[in-house]
Amino acid sequence: MTLSVYLSGEIHTDWRDRIIAGARGAALDAAFTAPVTDHDASDDCGVAIMGAEVDKFWHDHKGAKLNAIRTRKAIADADVVVVRFGDKYRQWNAAFDAGMAAAMGKSLIVMHGPDHQHPLKEVDAVALAVVETSEQVVQILTYVQTGTLPTADG
Amino acid sequence: MTLSVYLSGEIHTDWRDRIIAGARGAALDAAFTAPVTDHDASDDCGVAIMGAEVDKFWHDHKGAKLNAIRTRKAIADADVVVVRFGDKYRQWNAAFDAGMAAAMGKSLIVMHGPDHQHPLKEVDAVALAVVETSEQVVQILTYVQTGTLPTADG
Amino acid sequence: MTLSVYLSGEIHTDWRDRIIAGARGAALDAAFTAPVTDHDASDDCGVAIMGAEVDKFWHDHKGAKLNAIRTRKAIADADVVVVRFGDKYRQWNAAFDAGMAAAMGKSLIVMHGPDHQHPLKEVDAVALAVVETSEQVVQILTYVQTGTLPTADG
Amino acid sequence: MTLSVYLSGEIHTDWRDRIIAGARGAALDAAFTAPVTDHDASDDCGVAIMGAEVDKFWHDHKGAKLNAIRTRKAIADADVVVVRFGDKYRQWNAAFDAGMAAAMGKSLIVMHGPDHQHPLKEVDAVALAVVETSEQVVQILTYVQTGTLPTADG
Amino acid sequence: MTLSVYLSGEIHTDWRDRIIAGARGAALDAAFTAPVTDHDASDDCGVAIMGAEVDKFWHDHKGAKLNAIRTRKAIADADVVVVRFGDKYRQWNAAFDAGMAAAMGKSLIVMHGPDHQHPLKEVDAVALAVVETSEQVVQILTYVQTGTLPTADG
Amino acid sequence: MTLSVYLSGEIHTDWRDRIIAGARGAALDAAFTAPVTDHDASDDCGVAIMGAEVDKFWHDHKGAKLNAIRTRKAIADADVVVVRFGDKYRQWNAAFDAGMAAAMGKSLIVMHGPDHQHPLKEVDAVALAVVETSEQVVQILTYVQTGTLPTADG
Amino acid sequence: MTLSVYLSGEIHTDWRDRIIAGARGAALDAAFTAPVTDHDASDDCGVAIMGAEVDKFWHDHKGAKLNAIRTRKAIADADVVVVRFGDKYRQWNAAFDAGMAAAMGKSLIVMHGPDHQHPLKEVDAVALAVVETSEQVVQILTYVQTGTLPTADG
Amino acid sequence: MTLSVYLSGEIHTDWRDRIIAGARGAALDAAFTAPVTDHDASDDCGVAIMGAEVDKFWHDHKGAKLNAIRTRKAIADADVVVVRFGDKYRQWNAAFDAGMAAAMGKSLIVMHGPDHQHPLKEVDAVALAVVETSEQVVQILTYVQTGTLPTADG
Repeated sequence: MTLSVYLSGEIHTDWRDRIIAGARGAALDAAFTAPVTDHDASDDCGVAIMGAEVDKFWHDHKGAKLNAIRTRKAIADADVVVVRFGDKYRQWNAAFDAGMAAAMGKSLIVMHGPDHQHPLKEVDAVALAVVETSEQVVQILTYVQTGTLPTADG
Repeated sequence: MTLSVYLSGEIHTDWRDRIIAGARGAALDAAFTAPVTDHDASDDCGVAIMGAEVDKFWHDHKGAKLNAIRTRKAIADADVVVVRFGDKYRQWNAAFDAGMAAAMGKSLIVMHGPDHQHPLKEVDAVALAVVETSEQVVQILTYVQTGTLPTADG
Repeated sequence: MTLSVYLSGEIHTDWRDRIIAGARGAALDAAFTAPVTDHDASDDCGVAIMGAEVDKFWHDHKGAKLNAIRTRKAIADADVVVVRFGDKYRQWNAAFDAGMAAAMGKSLIVMHGPDHQHPLKEVDAVALAVVETSEQVVQILTYVQTGTLPTADG
Repeated sequence: MTLSVYLSGEIHTDWRDRIIAGARGAALDAAFTAPVTDHDASDDCGVAIMGAEVDKFWHDHKGAKLNAIRTRKAIADADVVVVRFGDKYRQWNAAFDAGMAAAMGKSLIVMHGPDHQHPLKEVDAVALAVVETSEQVVQILTYVQTGTLPTADG
Repeated sequence: MTLSVYLSGEIHTDWRDRIIAGARGAALDAAFTAPVTDHDASDDCGVAIMGAEVDKFWHDHKGAKLNAIRTRKAIADADVVVVRFGDKYRQWNAAFDAGMAAAMGKSLIVMHGPDHQHPLKEVDAVALAVVETSEQVVQILTYVQTGTLPTADG
Repeated sequence: MTLSVYLSGEIHTDWRDRIIAGARGAALDAAFTAPVTDHDASDDCGVAIMGAEVDKFWHDHKGAKLNAIRTRKAIADADVVVVRFGDKYRQWNAAFDAGMAAAMGKSLIVMHGPDHQHPLKEVDAVALAVVETSEQVVQILTYVQTGTLPTADG
Repeated sequence: MTLSVYLSGEIHTDWRDRIIAGARGAALDAAFTAPVTDHDASDDCGVAIMGAEVDKFWHDHKGAKLNAIRTRKAIADADVVVVRFGDKYRQWNAAFDAGMAAAMGKSLIVMHGPDHQHPLKEVDAVALAVVETSEQVVQILTYVQTGTLPTADG
Repeated sequence: MTLSVYLSGEIHTDWRDRIIAGARGAALDAAFTAPVTDHDASDDCGVAIMGAEVDKFWHDHKGAKLNAIRTRKAIADADVVVVRFGDKYRQWNAAFDAGMAAAMGKSLIVMHGPDHQHPLKEVDAVALAVVETSEQVVQILTYVQTGTLPTADG
């Protein structure tokens, strides 16, 4: 039972790397996908390929649509969608991805700190797990795939 | 062709009332739904009916799920989902609703000010219209239903 | 926003009548459906119409299929499915209905006493509300439709 | 034609092992999945990873949701869902899985003793086979895949 | 709970009229649809409207497609599909309708005499009821809608 | 059986009016929808409501999306989609609507002159009827709803 | 592009073998499935595994359901469904399979002799090809996969 | 993440070859499908296999349906559908494919010259990218799969 996992949300910390490394350490049969995490490339991809726009709205529009080709396929192919809300930025695209995933019946894991608990209550309410750390995500994927729980010392 | 319209998002200004009044003024055949907009009731509904919780997470959890009974039906029944992002709060539930609506193939209209353009680019990219005012929403609904555009003087 | 509500499960107490009466008392715009609650008719309907069976298995089989014509339509048409687990009998059909409703994306309300909490944890986990009384169901439907919460005196 | 088979229900006897061993003995091209069958791990997984709960309801809730990540994928990936009802416990989750499987159009095989025939009539009515033993399940899978029926001596 | 019922199959006896009259006699809230039962019109509709064909295959092809506009909508709108196999003709279109109805999750009632039992076993196996007479269909619809079974004298 | 009919395609002749008048003359129970047929309004609706664009591509883009709110709902609500290809213009949106309708399982009627037969062969191949005149469409709708064919004198 | 092809219908001639041999001869990348074609096993599988029935109806019922486990998966996995109507028997299950395949959006190829043209007109009308011989099916599969048409000498 | 890409539309220039060669040059993990691009074979396949037709309409009809077996599978299997509108012919089948792809939720890339901008506005409005050259398609696929943008010198 290979698990396909899409890692959505914050792109400025190493949370994805720690999940992927942890899953490898646990020898899980899991495949991870993610959005393009190079912020500049993600913002400018549309105009870089399809030509410059004077208006920032259309500049962003062309880029957001190109990125959607990747993220839609990744969500559609995923068994589990992990959405991480970090400390900075609006992160509406993370909440949007969570809504997409919920409507498509994906198993949703939400990851955020305690200060975001109240404004994320609607997202948490549809999640199958709410965690704070990458290590917890690895523990969940390990349990889901192997039935093994973390021991007292981790 | 009755239009069913769900008005999602910000609950602290009168944007919904202005859309509904405008649609009535234009004699549109449209039915509007909305989340519960009484902030306190929306936050506390779960514990008020199903009993208090010590932990704020579960307090919010019970409330968010009750509210979901209403919002899911409203989105499912809608032809058009209007999502308004205001100036305050995180509004992740608005972006979550937009994701749900997009995945369910609803026609999405996003309403926000120019300062939110960049962080909302992924949401705007799936919308069929991006506007700033309630009056524009009324003009869109009028055009969609009757084919009539606003005249020079409004 | 008319709410369509299917009342599944226990057929030996008046819990359905109290919900329906409460909804009427609250002037809700709600339509209720239920399985055939005449236990004998429900058990014998198949053979009564399509001929006797020697084997109890087929006697039950013919009846269960006839009842499914009613219950499938009721679940398919419902916005909200309330499943009541009572004190007696196995009630596997109630849990089966809950599984059907969950897979079909219906808003699920589960109603049971505290002694059934542990064995019903998988069912409760997909519910949008878990309650003990018919009155709580009425309060939920009232809140969902009108946004009004029960006052201190009920 | 690889058959994907999910083995749901009772976790206290060796019925799954006997099916898997029998399928291997018959050289079938079949892949089996199952819930986590370590009862303690299954009950406590949620709090073990995501932190303790005072209230037993939420303790169970967190665990049931983690288990759902595994079982939903397993049911979704399955061609055939076998649901076993044993002699002990309420087993509402088994009936719930059967309801999920039925609504998702999976081929359902139900396995139980004769004393459970009447209360399981609604579940049996949607099944494509009702059996009593693991050996019969192996015979069915063998027939479905190879067209071969058991010989007189087994 | 209005029942929408599509009456498919044999067009040379009065079995539809007897169901419709029986339902009216029982004051059921049921809406019936049927294919065009004028045999000549049904065969020739395509060429009558869209021009003659030399080749009988295309003559039939144009007619069959026109009839499909009606039958597809009727099946799609139906809660219950009754398929009647009579004594004459090949009636492959009746079995085809049954396959469509089954794949679309409709409640299927099959009506045929005992001599057709063996060749119809695959169709009967997906039906929720197998009957011989129009009166039994009326009894089933009555039970499904009202919970009332026929009395000893009919 | 009310028929919902969407009339897609050419907007420069009176073919829609003749179908609607014919259906009224035949006293059919049919509801017709259509795109906005005011060419200028259809082209300029986006900028008229949401502000001017320098680039013609975005001018058209905003308009095409607004029009999609209307046409998507109309196609989704339709039982029958009639697509008319006229003598002028590229009419790619007509073929696009036909593709949408086909993928959504709608009954498709295509209307065009003999000179367009070859380039429309893929569209015609999924249609349930291919006609040349509005009168034939009325005859088809009449037959579908009432089973009555045109008499010798029309 | 591997083609998955389900070969439904007549089980008393070698039409399947000729298609499979022809596809192998043409070096096609195609996978074929079929129902159990051992007539006795197909009729008796249910009682052989799950115990004898006095009533022929239930004898057949148990068998038909077991066979459905195989045929449903095969149809669901298929890109192309070929349905062959032979000279003997009622073959309602073939027409039923065609209805299932049509409702599931499969590409349907129907194979029958000229004397069955009129009674099969509804089935032919939804088919993408109507042929008489196994060789034509091989030619179609070859063309679909490679774009190559048969040469003058076969 | 293998990308499945269907290349629809114009068959008289080498735009497909250039995309496939470019993707190979960029070492992408992508699988390409296309319609049969031999114009004569595509036009005549139906009659070549299933027998001649006097009427050109049915000649084309049989061919268009055979081709649909290939194109439907290709679109259904695709993650990305690229539709190219060239300078010649009506190309209604390209627009039809775009409509199919849009309704099936595929990521759509439209490729055409500036003179076709206005008549293609409805198709462009649902696309995630609108480009003019094969090289841009390769750049998009490269970005979607690897996150890498073209450098200044290409």
